[in-house]
Amino acid sequence: MQLGKVVGTVVATQRDPKLGEMKFLLVQQIDFNNKPTGGYVVAVDAVGAGVGEVVMYATGSSARQTVLTDQKPCDATIMAIVDTWDIKGKVKFTKE
Amino acid sequence: MQLGKVVGTVVATQRDPKLGEMKFLLVQQIDFNNKPTGGYVVAVDAVGAGVGEVVMYATGSSARQTVLTDQKPCDATIMAIVDTWDIKGKVKFTKE
Amino acid sequence: MQLGKVVGTVVATQRDPKLGEMKFLLVQQIDFNNKPTGGYVVAVDAVGAGVGEVVMYATGSSARQTVLTDQKPCDATIMAIVDTWDIKGKVKFTKE
Amino acid sequence: MQLGKVVGTVVATQRDPKLGEMKFLLVQQIDFNNKPTGGYVVAVDAVGAGVGEVVMYATGSSARQTVLTDQKPCDATIMAIVDTWDIKGKVKFTKE
Amino acid sequence: MQLGKVVGTVVATQRDPKLGEMKFLLVQQIDFNNKPTGGYVVAVDAVGAGVGEVVMYATGSSARQTVLTDQKPCDATIMAIVDTWDIKGKVKFTKE
Repeated sequence: MQLGKVVGTVVATQRDPKLGEMKFLLVQQIDFNNKPTGGYVVAVDAVGAGVGEVVMYATGSSARQTVLTDQKPCDATIMAIVDTWDIKGKVKFTKE
Repeated sequence: MQLGKVVGTVVATQRDPKLGEMKFLLVQQIDFNNKPTGGYVVAVDAVGAGVGEVVMYATGSSARQTVLTDQKPCDATIMAIVDTWDIKGKVKFTKE
Repeated sequence: MQLGKVVGTVVATQRDPKLGEMKFLLVQQIDFNNKPTGGYVVAVDAVGAGVGEVVMYATGSSARQTVLTDQKPCDATIMAIVDTWDIKGKVKFTKE
Repeated sequence: MQLGKVVGTVVATQRDPKLGEMKFLLVQQIDFNNKPTGGYVVAVDAVGAGVGEVVMYATGSSARQTVLTDQKPCDATIMAIVDTWDIKGKVKFTKE
Repeated sequence: MQLGKVVGTVVATQRDPKLGEMKFLLVQQIDFNNKPTGGYVVAVDAVGAGVGEVVMYATGSSARQTVLTDQKPCDATIMAIVDTWDIKGKVKFTKE
């Protein structure tokens, strides 16, 4: 999984029928020092994340292993909201 | 998923039989500021996108989860046409 | 899918038995301006492509969706020979 | 697989239900000279690795082939702890 | 598939049980001019390759399509030993 920050939303009404009313979030990829890497992904949200939150997302076929995304043409899913992480025992990020 | 702009079409008559008459679109990858990243993909279109439109596409096995692409040797599918996206509440793109 | 130019062949007699007598082609990745990207792939050929031809190839599990590559340890397959492509209505490549 | 060094842990209580109480480790990718590549991954640990240990991890659908990660939305799993590796007969790394 | 040169071995006794006694080889990725690309992979060997040999390896789910790697948490497998390759009819590599 990669760490990311939810920065926005994508609206797309004309879509493959299998997607249903799924919402799409724009996620800026971050590294483990909480800095943007320059990458991003549009992800389906399986955990109720909001703009500004730091999350973990899975990509590829693993993104389809939630009840919400099963058998959907979706290759990136937010599967957890991050509370905190540490590096060598030192806290690097804490959710506000 | 990634954001992209449809810039052209690819014609290929000699093809694997499982592809049938599927059409291929040339998609320029864009970032969330609507700038080209330098990457591209040739994608199957599951939603009736046209040249000039901004779309979302899925890659890998997720690209085969539409009715159109099921069990086909296809690793990139346009699964939605983008209406709009915003970053931190500010609209970054609106479909004309 | 990505665009590529077939530039050579790879011979490998000591191989996993599931591969049978499959032939391997060396494919130089090209961008949509028909310039090499610096990348390459060794691909199985499902369509009878020859050296010098411009092709499309699929990677990952999608590369196993042809009759030839089904359940084989193969992660890249040429699934079409390109006749032509255009960008914004202007032809960029035509097969000779 | 890639080589990595476990550098920390990620805590995420709000998560997809299928993840259960799975723990997440922060893994810094290293090259075969034992130098950081600049990449990282958040991985599930299938082998009881601790911070400071050098490990191997699998990504993509292969990350779901352990009993622990089967059918979970997880795309990176530590599947072995590295004891040693050598290059051309010269030991490059030994576990302390 | 990608081309690579086997440069070493990785020993890892603490491992996921599904891996059994599988051996791991360190493979330096090479380009089609037989130069290192800077990348590497730790791969399972399905064909009896030795240090110094030039091989082809498959990644992702395709790496699990050999009898040896079926349903294992393994994302890279050496599936052939390269005898020779040519570019535009000129031999670029021959096994010694």
